[in-house]
Amino acid sequence: MNDKLTHFDNEGRAIMVDVGGKPVSERVAIAAGEVRMQPATLRRILDRSIEKGDVFGIARTAGIMAAKQTSGLIPLCHPLLLTSVGLEFDSHPDEGRVEIRATVKVGGQTGVEMEALTAVSVAGLTIYDMSKAIDRGMVIGRVRLIEKHGGKSGSWVREED
Amino acid sequence: MNDKLTHFDNEGRAIMVDVGGKPVSERVAIAAGEVRMQPATLRRILDRSIEKGDVFGIARTAGIMAAKQTSGLIPLCHPLLLTSVGLEFDSHPDEGRVEIRATVKVGGQTGVEMEALTAVSVAGLTIYDMSKAIDRGMVIGRVRLIEKHGGKSGSWVREED
Amino acid sequence: MNDKLTHFDNEGRAIMVDVGGKPVSERVAIAAGEVRMQPATLRRILDRSIEKGDVFGIARTAGIMAAKQTSGLIPLCHPLLLTSVGLEFDSHPDEGRVEIRATVKVGGQTGVEMEALTAVSVAGLTIYDMSKAIDRGMVIGRVRLIEKHGGKSGSWVREED
Amino acid sequence: MNDKLTHFDNEGRAIMVDVGGKPVSERVAIAAGEVRMQPATLRRILDRSIEKGDVFGIARTAGIMAAKQTSGLIPLCHPLLLTSVGLEFDSHPDEGRVEIRATVKVGGQTGVEMEALTAVSVAGLTIYDMSKAIDRGMVIGRVRLIEKHGGKSGSWVREED
Amino acid sequence: MNDKLTHFDNEGRAIMVDVGGKPVSERVAIAAGEVRMQPATLRRILDRSIEKGDVFGIARTAGIMAAKQTSGLIPLCHPLLLTSVGLEFDSHPDEGRVEIRATVKVGGQTGVEMEALTAVSVAGLTIYDMSKAIDRGMVIGRVRLIEKHGGKSGSWVREED
Amino acid sequence: MNDKLTHFDNEGRAIMVDVGGKPVSERVAIAAGEVRMQPATLRRILDRSIEKGDVFGIARTAGIMAAKQTSGLIPLCHPLLLTSVGLEFDSHPDEGRVEIRATVKVGGQTGVEMEALTAVSVAGLTIYDMSKAIDRGMVIGRVRLIEKHGGKSGSWVREED
Repeated sequence: MNDKLTHFDNEGRAIMVDVGGKPVSERVAIAAGEVRMQPATLRRILDRSIEKGDVFGIARTAGIMAAKQTSGLIPLCHPLLLTSVGLEFDSHPDEGRVEIRATVKVGGQTGVEMEALTAVSVAGLTIYDMSKAIDRGMVIGRVRLIEKHGGKSGSWVREED
Repeated sequence: MNDKLTHFDNEGRAIMVDVGGKPVSERVAIAAGEVRMQPATLRRILDRSIEKGDVFGIARTAGIMAAKQTSGLIPLCHPLLLTSVGLEFDSHPDEGRVEIRATVKVGGQTGVEMEALTAVSVAGLTIYDMSKAIDRGMVIGRVRLIEKHGGKSGSWVREED
Repeated sequence: MNDKLTHFDNEGRAIMVDVGGKPVSERVAIAAGEVRMQPATLRRILDRSIEKGDVFGIARTAGIMAAKQTSGLIPLCHPLLLTSVGLEFDSHPDEGRVEIRATVKVGGQTGVEMEALTAVSVAGLTIYDMSKAIDRGMVIGRVRLIEKHGGKSGSWVREED
Repeated sequence: MNDKLTHFDNEGRAIMVDVGGKPVSERVAIAAGEVRMQPATLRRILDRSIEKGDVFGIARTAGIMAAKQTSGLIPLCHPLLLTSVGLEFDSHPDEGRVEIRATVKVGGQTGVEMEALTAVSVAGLTIYDMSKAIDRGMVIGRVRLIEKHGGKSGSWVREED
Repeated sequence: MNDKLTHFDNEGRAIMVDVGGKPVSERVAIAAGEVRMQPATLRRILDRSIEKGDVFGIARTAGIMAAKQTSGLIPLCHPLLLTSVGLEFDSHPDEGRVEIRATVKVGGQTGVEMEALTAVSVAGLTIYDMSKAIDRGMVIGRVRLIEKHGGKSGSWVREED
Repeated sequence: MNDKLTHFDNEGRAIMVDVGGKPVSERVAIAAGEVRMQPATLRRILDRSIEKGDVFGIARTAGIMAAKQTSGLIPLCHPLLLTSVGLEFDSHPDEGRVEIRATVKVGGQTGVEMEALTAVSVAGLTIYDMSKAIDRGMVIGRVRLIEKHGGKSGSWVREED
């Protein structure tokens, strides 16, 4: 693994690093995170979903749209033509915990880790926003890269403990 | 505290809830979060800052700009004219941990919790982006509201354990 | 009703007209439109909704978010702090027709007709996008203001035939 | 033609579908729509154009800019590097009707129908905005795809009655 | 006039400064700038305008839209509800020089100098973009504040030499 | 060099010109500009940088982010996947002058002159914004293309006098 912070040039100035010499390759990134809340809050979200409201549906839409805005949010992130974005939500009602997982793909000169992490973050923020009237104490946590594939550095898979 | 999910109307349809009847009041929200990384990564960030590069400076700018984009990212969030946004970074090199704290203010009809949480999240994502070449395993976590003041529901302060 | 095109100054140059002298008042606008499609397409959308997918849910989210972007899309439209946005979809399966209705509110110096019309248009485009693989011939039509209230010109209600 | 709603995965969750396996090809889409108004309103627009103001010029600019924002407005729409966007306006003063037609091109993995339809819609909304002070009753209608070419599904041409 | 850089807090960290304590007042800013080009280029622009094309019309639209995006472009700039934006172009064909002047108004807690300067800059960039195929050597210059009124610091008028 | 304004079609209507037939090639553009201010202002900026605040660091971030937004600001500009953006600031304290220089690269069907010029302009506006409390008279000037390479028209290098 590289041992310098590549977002700075030789004189320490921030740059959007030149990826022009890299070949276009298929790239995938999977990121995950979680929202922790009162179990009663999660039951309310799930009940509501069973009726008509759909917190996870709106959070999924927000996460997909955010993935497409990543290079506008993260200063040194390259614009990319995402070819696929998907989000999954996995509820653990007894723990009051929702797992969020985003998978992003692109054919491009740089990876989509930031897009996947941004999708997870914004989906988590949306769940918070829609539920905060009943539970202000919710915590968004463990936002992390799970795996990535493609590009010169090849595959990386998190070793979870 | 309210016991219904206010982002749905009586038939369960998502709405941007009507805040038109609420009085304008001064509101403040403080949110926090952290990025965990290898201690060596944080030392690299801090060394670089001491020279010329400035990961935290860029993350602060990204967080401030993201706070202003919140209503464009979070579907049911109201647009607001933020009057103040600030971010602080507190480094714990031995633990490889950076605490991020955002304070947002507004005079408006609804609170700025989402703006503060969005600023923290995007600042954390920016730190990840700028350091990921040397440490892909970083984790953004504990993104949470610390306190809020103003509005009908008044003050709320997290009881941290 | 005014008899000049107020978006031009005395020399015919486009301007974003000065609303600074107008009082702030509560304003509401309701707009509507429709998407016409094969009855079989609408049945597919409705079946899918009954299962898990939710075309109207995503179109509602898109419409709400678009309402907030209106002043970025329509060149001479003023930015406004919308206080409420809601969308309803009313399906007529035998006709293959979906009615879309958006209600937008603000306390401001100018009205929200454009925000309501933009919400309807983008919701219609989203329905088209999500269904076009099975029915390219869909038509978005009758996008129009239904009523508006507030402001110096007061109330206006469409007389539908 | 496909018989499933491709914007949902096998479990009914919305996704931005994977177009990564599709070849890049030249694609064109032409969409059209119309704005109906009082004949006197259209005469005012046309007279103004003959002087200096230019409703259609501003609507054309708005439509071109909106085409570039399509993937930010329509949740499951892929970002694309549009290579060409053009809009035409065809006035029928006796009927009080303006036809809008947009042509969009790209070399990409997915089509530009949504971009052409969005350009037409936003151009129509801009005409409405600039003329609403003299005619609130205008209707934007018949927004539809006229033809598309390129991609695996090849050409599609609307059969108008 | 203030003698410290107000965009930094006491520890030198960038902040979006707190304007919450300032009263809302009517504010106006006028900015100007110029584009210098070959006289033949300006004649081409003017001839084209006399026919149908309209470089200044499109640059005016771009400048108005950019004024509304200012707080998204300039990191520490406050969002504001602009109440009026106008741009004028004054051609000096013999010198190959176009003067651009923007006037922006708001009722708010902070001024609109940046909005007026941004409108001028983007209008100049648009003129460059539309004419660069015939004259790459054009120069955008003298972008400056001409006058401002309102707010605690009151009026400021440039003394031009 | 071309002798027609390519942003209009044969009937004088603005279009985003078709670049679909152009080959993808590596393209570079370098633009420059300057901000003129009181020498005391520049000393204040430089002192502040030596402490902790960093006007040029924030202006660099703003310029990089603006380069990525160029096609959203300039109406007829094509979207592009920038592969590299960098900005340099060169201070001349005795003259009270800061030179800004931006270098932008892409592999694409059209050039990046506008992206480089936009980066310089927004960096200059950011310097103005952050220093205006102590010097309203600053002037942003001489924004111009320095050189470009790649594409059918090949290299162009400004002959400075």
